Amino acid sequence: MYPQNLQRKIRRERKTNSMDPLIIFSLGASGLGIAFGFWLKYSVGKLPAGDDRMKEIASAIQEGSYAYLKRQYQTVGIVAVVLAIALSFIPEVGRLIAIGFVIGAVFSAIAGFIGMQTAVTANVRTTEAAKKGIKEAFLVAVRGGGVTGFLVAGLALLAVTLFWHFSGGSSAGLIGLGFGGSLISVFARLGGGIFTKGADVGADLCGKIELGIPEDDPRNPAVIADNVGDNVGDTAGMAADLFETYAVTLVAALLLAVDTAQEIFPIGLGGAALLASIIGFFFARIKNEKHIMWGLYKGLLVSLALSAIFFIHIADSSFADSTRLYGASLVGLVVALLMVIVTEYYTSQNFRPVRSIAEASQSGHGTNVIMGLAVGLESTFVPILIVVGGILAAFTLSGLYGIAIAAVSMVALSGIIVTIDAFGPITDNAGGIAEMAKLPESVRNNTDPLDAVGNTTKAVTKGFAIASAGLAALVLFASFVQEAEHLGLAVSFDLTNPKVLVGLFIGGSLPYLFASMAMRAVGKAASAVVEEVRRQWTEIKGLKEGTAKPDYARAVDIVTKSSLRQMIIPALTPIVVTLLVGFVFGISALGGLLIGVIVTGLFVALSMTSGGGAWDNAKKYIEDGNFGGKGSLSHQAAITGDTVGDPYKDTAGPAINPMIKVVNIVALLMLSLLA
Amino acid sequence: MYPQNLQRKIRRERKTNSMDPLIIFSLGASGLGIAFGFWLKYSVGKLPAGDDRMKEIASAIQEGSYAYLKRQYQTVGIVAVVLAIALSFIPEVGRLIAIGFVIGAVFSAIAGFIGMQTAVTANVRTTEAAKKGIKEAFLVAVRGGGVTGFLVAGLALLAVTLFWHFSGGSSAGLIGLGFGGSLISVFARLGGGIFTKGADVGADLCGKIELGIPEDDPRNPAVIADNVGDNVGDTAGMAADLFETYAVTLVAALLLAVDTAQEIFPIGLGGAALLASIIGFFFARIKNEKHIMWGLYKGLLVSLALSAIFFIHIADSSFADSTRLYGASLVGLVVALLMVIVTEYYTSQNFRPVRSIAEASQSGHGTNVIMGLAVGLESTFVPILIVVGGILAAFTLSGLYGIAIAAVSMVALSGIIVTIDAFGPITDNAGGIAEMAKLPESVRNNTDPLDAVGNTTKAVTKGFAIASAGLAALVLFASFVQEAEHLGLAVSFDLTNPKVLVGLFIGGSLPYLFASMAMRAVGKAASAVVEEVRRQWTEIKGLKEGTAKPDYARAVDIVTKSSLRQMIIPALTPIVVTLLVGFVFGISALGGLLIGVIVTGLFVALSMTSGGGAWDNAKKYIEDGNFGGKGSLSHQAAITGDTVGDPYKDTAGPAINPMIKVVNIVALLMLSLLA
Repeated sequence: MYPQNLQRKIRRERKTNSMDPLIIFSLGASGLGIAFGFWLKYSVGKLPAGDDRMKEIASAIQEGSYAYLKRQYQTVGIVAVVLAIALSFIPEVGRLIAIGFVIGAVFSAIAGFIGMQTAVTANVRTTEAAKKGIKEAFLVAVRGGGVTGFLVAGLALLAVTLFWHFSGGSSAGLIGLGFGGSLISVFARLGGGIFTKGADVGADLCGKIELGIPEDDPRNPAVIADNVGDNVGDTAGMAADLFETYAVTLVAALLLAVDTAQEIFPIGLGGAALLASIIGFFFARIKNEKHIMWGLYKGLLVSLALSAIFFIHIADSSFADSTRLYGASLVGLVVALLMVIVTEYYTSQNFRPVRSIAEASQSGHGTNVIMGLAVGLESTFVPILIVVGGILAAFTLSGLYGIAIAAVSMVALSGIIVTIDAFGPITDNAGGIAEMAKLPESVRNNTDPLDAVGNTTKAVTKGFAIASAGLAALVLFASFVQEAEHLGLAVSFDLTNPKVLVGLFIGGSLPYLFASMAMRAVGKAASAVVEEVRRQWTEIKGLKEGTAKPDYARAVDIVTKSSLRQMIIPALTPIVVTLLVGFVFGISALGGLLIGVIVTGLFVALSMTSGGGAWDNAKKYIEDGNFGGKGSLSHQAAITGDTVGDPYKDTAGPAINPMIKVVNIVALLMLSLLA
Repeated sequence: MYPQNLQRKIRRERKTNSMDPLIIFSLGASGLGIAFGFWLKYSVGKLPAGDDRMKEIASAIQEGSYAYLKRQYQTVGIVAVVLAIALSFIPEVGRLIAIGFVIGAVFSAIAGFIGMQTAVTANVRTTEAAKKGIKEAFLVAVRGGGVTGFLVAGLALLAVTLFWHFSGGSSAGLIGLGFGGSLISVFARLGGGIFTKGADVGADLCGKIELGIPEDDPRNPAVIADNVGDNVGDTAGMAADLFETYAVTLVAALLLAVDTAQEIFPIGLGGAALLASIIGFFFARIKNEKHIMWGLYKGLLVSLALSAIFFIHIADSSFADSTRLYGASLVGLVVALLMVIVTEYYTSQNFRPVRSIAEASQSGHGTNVIMGLAVGLESTFVPILIVVGGILAAFTLSGLYGIAIAAVSMVALSGIIVTIDAFGPITDNAGGIAEMAKLPESVRNNTDPLDAVGNTTKAVTKGFAIASAGLAALVLFASFVQEAEHLGLAVSFDLTNPKVLVGLFIGGSLPYLFASMAMRAVGKAASAVVEEVRRQWTEIKGLKEGTAKPDYARAVDIVTKSSLRQMIIPALTPIVVTLLVGFVFGISALGGLLIGVIVTGLFVALSMTSGGGAWDNAKKYIEDGNFGGKGSLSHQAAITGDTVGDPYKDTAGPAINPMIKVVNIVALLMLSLLA
């Protein structure tokens, strides 16, 4: 069992007596990234946190967020410990797998935790800064986002580099590390996603629709839970997801790199892009309200351009003839850029898709939803062509390994991409705090445009995350095939083999089943919130008039319990199905399963996140005074679309990313058992 | 080019000097089926058609339906003539392909036309019979449905059998025949689907929501268009679809049958099941209102059981050792039965899914839609397992040919299945006529329960149609692989080949793109209807009061133009993309494309048709007095869900069936050009 791995281990042990310069470079870069993240954290932390009322609200959000995350980690921790013990029983390599697994899980959890810790500090400080102006508020939010961004990228790069070095490049251990990250991430994305949208939909249903009070009104008992959700779902969940994509992609690329001249080339790319992102970060500045989006994109574009330059050096120092592999790394950067542009097109208020949804809202709820679904379905086409083009270009340049390099160079941008993404929930919270603390309208006028842009950036980075997850999963599949060959397993993944088809169909069904469970979970959590709000609204005297305070903590507690309870089965389903298919139908079906889950997973996730983002901004477009504006029938219809889009874009859609990869990782782990 | 085909042609010419007894049997059975259909048509036609008001309304619906179908056939006719000429230029076999193509197209059009002709006669006679009682109305509607059912099955069997016999079993010609059927069917499903739901959604938006008048109120100018839609979409479109599935499945099975002892075994199965369905038809009777669904299912179950018995004889007379192929034919019957049961579960008011949507409606439009989407997503899982189980069982029994036999035995039930399906639009129309003719409430009380059951049977037969389309497409893929090998083309469809992956992704994107275009087309057609209704409502004096008549014909004309204009591009897109992928990326990518379109196509179509059916019946469940009943907030939310479900279940979802197959047929045709 694992004969090839053992050989490789021995070979590496000889090699790694002296530390490779690229390793030193990447350790330095990741150290710098982490230090930069902590420095941003410190710089945000010492900013003023506003008046007592603001602090009180912020601390309620903090408490709720910590309480949720603690219980989430406890729950996942139990699963992780059980799995780690089980993994350690795999013969020969079990101990290494288990160690890798624990490292992946712990680092992923740390990235999520610190990111959220900063988000709940940065939110109220953004509100405070918004008193001065939009420029100032922007800076606080982008710094807060940067903490998550650079910790995610830095920790992922550090974990893989260190583990690769000290384990002697053990492929089994690396797979374990990927699995650890995947496990945390599938739970965090799902649990956080159910929490955030359960609270959001529940609060909206009661607040805007039933009680007729505005969003973030402090009399709504679910309002703190709604803001907690932004942090535990959109920050901590997203951070765990991107950490995992980064780590897993690197792992898969390293597995494929075994026979290349410079095996740690992918690690070098990670270090280079991280440095580029730190520099790019300083270009994320705005002059006025009109250029918020552009301010964020500037940071991204500079990071992209610098990465393209730095990669030349990494490639030249790694290979005698580096042109083709450098070309593959450029493919990844181009795919990242194109994905951002296309998702922007589908989710921004400036283009046809969002406006067509807004226009359709004039004839009512039904037509709004029909048009939104149509936009979501359509929004998959060009991204798929981009991914396909990327696959073909990278493969033509340097084969399967070229695809791996393209995927790595794409996720290597995570530092700046996550910064832009984590900016969203901070500004969302900042607006909520301004409303709850009854600050003057001028403050809200400064946070609102930031929040609107945050909505688009959240959608845009989701497009990026899905495309990179798709590429990462394809690379995992390639590693799966390679490992299977190494293990001497007879492999045929031909479409004419009915077992491959069976795997394809079952794999294809997983995203559907998973998304369905996630949507239903949000519905249930939201119903629990509605019940609780109704109860408080009738039982607590003076709440309506604003003289008594609602019991925020109880609402948070209810959503916490509901989302944790409901994340277990959907999160374990893909793992169990993968094991079943592998053991019952064998390795050909397993290969079909991996591709099946990637194919339908990409479509389901893309249509959900873009569709959801478009619905959200169609509502905002109407609120800006188009097609009747606030309070009109169009607006009512647009609120319905937004509510439908919520679990689409923030629960089911993004949770499919880690799900796709967890299936692929589990299949890789199974190989030794099937051998 | 086509060397293998030519050989086969010669071989067959020798054989077919004397007519095979199975051919004689199947010609007899198909002749009997067609004669039975015409007899039913005659027996319905001589029933009383009610008073002058009813006749007037029925004739308006008839005129509109004929006007639409005439223009649809003109439009498609132009495309068909161009294609037939182009096909005839293919070297050596071009003439046979073109002849097959024309036969397939013409027979498909005939089946759709006569079916619709009867539906527009049976609708008003069902209303008239409903004056006497529900039992009588049921009988008229089921006879009207039987006309379509037995003509579809009879004509499809006749066309393939005759063509097989006289062309000497030319595979090229058979593929041409399949393509002819596919082309008509993709246009008919799409054009009819856009018409029916454009008119329905448009009429509902104005009528129920804007003007506050009930469904089918004669003051609504779109009300005739809505009823026309039932006939051109749900009857003519569905008939063309099932005709095509039947013909194409038989064709694909015959292509695979070349090396078997009895090549025309599939044709024999078709004849046997058709006889079984004629007998089964007479068991479709009811005693009272409570057993309408059971009355229809009795007909189906008897047909199934008799087919299972008749198949023994066909298999025994065809093969020395017939056990395994007989087993494969049973697999098809079991898959058909299980699909009916599962779809019934997801779309009937008696089970959890529909009720959970109804329950979720209590908290508003948004939660209704969320739950409906969740049900749609979930409803794909068990059907996929059924299909997968069927594939495995049939393959284990007798290889790829076993899968073909299972597919044939499934579609061989089309006679009775289409009867049950076509029952729906007739009862829907009957209710509409009762309302418009202001007949006493007792009549409506007799047509309403029939209509409700019709909704479920429409959904159930769609589940059947999708599963059989999926199996048929897989069989086409198998024929594609076999033909490619015969032509000496190097073929590898391994998932490790990036071109296969590229094909998979592009194929996977087609159902999404196609569905998106279909949804948007319905939105546009509905908007055009809304504008026209608003115009008439303000410009025609006395319309509100009911003293003046609306201009029904103009509304019909507007929907006709809109749907015909909007069906062209989506219908041609899959054909063009298939040609492009084949010529640009070659045969491996083409194979990937075929499987990609099947995989995502099945999921998209299943989730849309079951989700849509569930939304529809959730509304009916509330209207029956649950969760607040008619006029409540729940009911409003349920109407939104129903509106969203309309284009899902009657336009985009079902149109994916022929689309999947047209892609596979075009790929088969391309082989000779790629060789």
